[in-house]
Amino acid sequence: MRRIALVTDFGTRDPYVAAMKGVIASRTDAPILDCTHEIAPFDIWEAAFYLRPIVRYWPDGTIFTVVIDPGVGTSRRMVAIDSAGTFFLAPDNGVLTFVIGIAHAVENESLFLPDGSTTFHGRDRFAPVAAALANGLSMEQLGPRIDNLVRIDYDPPTYDRKRAEGTIVAVDRFGNLITDVESARIPFTSFVLQARQKTVSRMSSTYTGNGPFLIVGSAGCVEISAPQASAAALLQLSRGDRVVIIPA
Amino acid sequence: MRRIALVTDFGTRDPYVAAMKGVIASRTDAPILDCTHEIAPFDIWEAAFYLRPIVRYWPDGTIFTVVIDPGVGTSRRMVAIDSAGTFFLAPDNGVLTFVIGIAHAVENESLFLPDGSTTFHGRDRFAPVAAALANGLSMEQLGPRIDNLVRIDYDPPTYDRKRAEGTIVAVDRFGNLITDVESARIPFTSFVLQARQKTVSRMSSTYTGNGPFLIVGSAGCVEISAPQASAAALLQLSRGDRVVIIPA
Amino acid sequence: MRRIALVTDFGTRDPYVAAMKGVIASRTDAPILDCTHEIAPFDIWEAAFYLRPIVRYWPDGTIFTVVIDPGVGTSRRMVAIDSAGTFFLAPDNGVLTFVIGIAHAVENESLFLPDGSTTFHGRDRFAPVAAALANGLSMEQLGPRIDNLVRIDYDPPTYDRKRAEGTIVAVDRFGNLITDVESARIPFTSFVLQARQKTVSRMSSTYTGNGPFLIVGSAGCVEISAPQASAAALLQLSRGDRVVIIPA
Repeated sequence: MRRIALVTDFGTRDPYVAAMKGVIASRTDAPILDCTHEIAPFDIWEAAFYLRPIVRYWPDGTIFTVVIDPGVGTSRRMVAIDSAGTFFLAPDNGVLTFVIGIAHAVENESLFLPDGSTTFHGRDRFAPVAAALANGLSMEQLGPRIDNLVRIDYDPPTYDRKRAEGTIVAVDRFGNLITDVESARIPFTSFVLQARQKTVSRMSSTYTGNGPFLIVGSAGCVEISAPQASAAALLQLSRGDRVVIIPA
Repeated sequence: MRRIALVTDFGTRDPYVAAMKGVIASRTDAPILDCTHEIAPFDIWEAAFYLRPIVRYWPDGTIFTVVIDPGVGTSRRMVAIDSAGTFFLAPDNGVLTFVIGIAHAVENESLFLPDGSTTFHGRDRFAPVAAALANGLSMEQLGPRIDNLVRIDYDPPTYDRKRAEGTIVAVDRFGNLITDVESARIPFTSFVLQARQKTVSRMSSTYTGNGPFLIVGSAGCVEISAPQASAAALLQLSRGDRVVIIPA
Repeated sequence: MRRIALVTDFGTRDPYVAAMKGVIASRTDAPILDCTHEIAPFDIWEAAFYLRPIVRYWPDGTIFTVVIDPGVGTSRRMVAIDSAGTFFLAPDNGVLTFVIGIAHAVENESLFLPDGSTTFHGRDRFAPVAAALANGLSMEQLGPRIDNLVRIDYDPPTYDRKRAEGTIVAVDRFGNLITDVESARIPFTSFVLQARQKTVSRMSSTYTGNGPFLIVGSAGCVEISAPQASAAALLQLSRGDRVVIIPA
């Protein structure tokens, strides 16, 4: 079964999500699932890291329709990626940085709404193309294959015998500071984390105890957390801050 | 296939949406789609303009269930409109101002939950009636035909050779100021917009460049926008403000 | 038809809800319905009272998957309740205080995701177990029957000839103060409500008139409301405050 999963920065108060759902429902009976509409407006970086931990949990035939599109109406391309049977539709602006697969430019205008706008491609282009994919259209019918997708500006973490370095890539609702440092790749077992002159040294395997602590989060990466409190507020750290992990 | 699309001012933190969904799911297997639950509390005007740009994108058989109902429990009527095969259920308070179709008062109490409340018609009346429509009930079975629906207080835009006048009818999440002035009906091609002693003169077809600009939005109307910034904040304009468009 | 209804404190901006939905969609075609993801972080009390007024409106075969879980990763149990054909999955921390039924501990690890985390049981345990229930798994296959579920700290209301006493158990989006005092059990017909030295004496059956008033809410309990205004703000009352109802 094919499904359409929506990721946008539209919020839900404006009529944009409902317009997209209407277009989709007019063209396919495939289920429509809301992932999020709360990506910060225009925040390509947030969207890329939003997708990263969820993609592998979705079944073949899912069509992720990702509309975070500050360049709507400009010459930025619209792209589709087939990632081993999971599909992604998005503007070519970096939101699919962490998606691996076969990419096509979406250029087949016959799939778009007639008389569409330059200002709302989510409704006029992404929604009908998502519906067409849900109905079985092949990637080849979207447009030519491409291989030079735009990627966000991002330094991946580094690991050596004396230190691992990485970045706080997200702060969640609970105030957890989520880094990109994979616990399994740190070549020493006992360590402390440093960021902006602060040091966190306690390791925990559950969200208990006092004060900030380090924990291996649900994506296998080191997180800074605090028991039923915001580690972000306690430590005054935020997305983009660099972290260094050294042996304890 | 019939579908039920929900538009409410309930938010999602309170149990009201879930109660409605439960009643619907108890009575029909039709899919339930969330349009929005974030209409400002009691804001009939916002809801009317929320529906306006989305309705034509939805397929026949959709049942829009619109519960913004400051007069719940009073003698305000409950109405249903069949708009060429798309259905609308709402209190008769103006939320359906822009919906054209055949209207019936919903008076068939056998469709309501037994022992319903006077305080939550969304659950006790709208949800079961929506489910009944999804299962194929006809409009005639709801109640008598009516033709004097309540409409919101609203001056539509005017157009003449020297000026067009209209209203800012919505401010979206991105800070775009959306007017009701249709670009195609302005009888001159080069123009400036004035509102509250401010003038916006640059026209753009994409969300780029510097400073506030005018753009034809996704509903074909003139919008005031700013590149990756809130035009509403920059210009100190808000919903309800009048705009005048004159030749440049 | 079985359906999965989600109640969490995850918000929708973070990728947690989407990860859960992906796991569910990978394992079952049962519809997934959002109840709420906006329970205040870790607020077991709010979640228990969120569920209370909605459960009876949902059909047999619904699987409420309730993930408010401050103790994730600790030894708190994971439980399932069969409440006359409606199912509940939750951590054993009190969120199911008001659900009556046959409870089992969920201990069958073969149902969980392999290599799951200690930090995200919503994705790694609750989602796959919910999908298995949706596909027809029996309660017995989850784990042993148990009968000593954790309950929240809560004094139920009392009623006698001279007074009824209760608690404000929720404040909704509209500012309505919702008590647990059931109107039908108050043994006098004309009454006033007192809370924190304030008295509310006007009774109303609709949300009209001036000033704060008492109304029988949609769950049959006494609410303090105000016409198109927040009674909570007007009266400076909040969740947890005690109320006394005496004859007028």
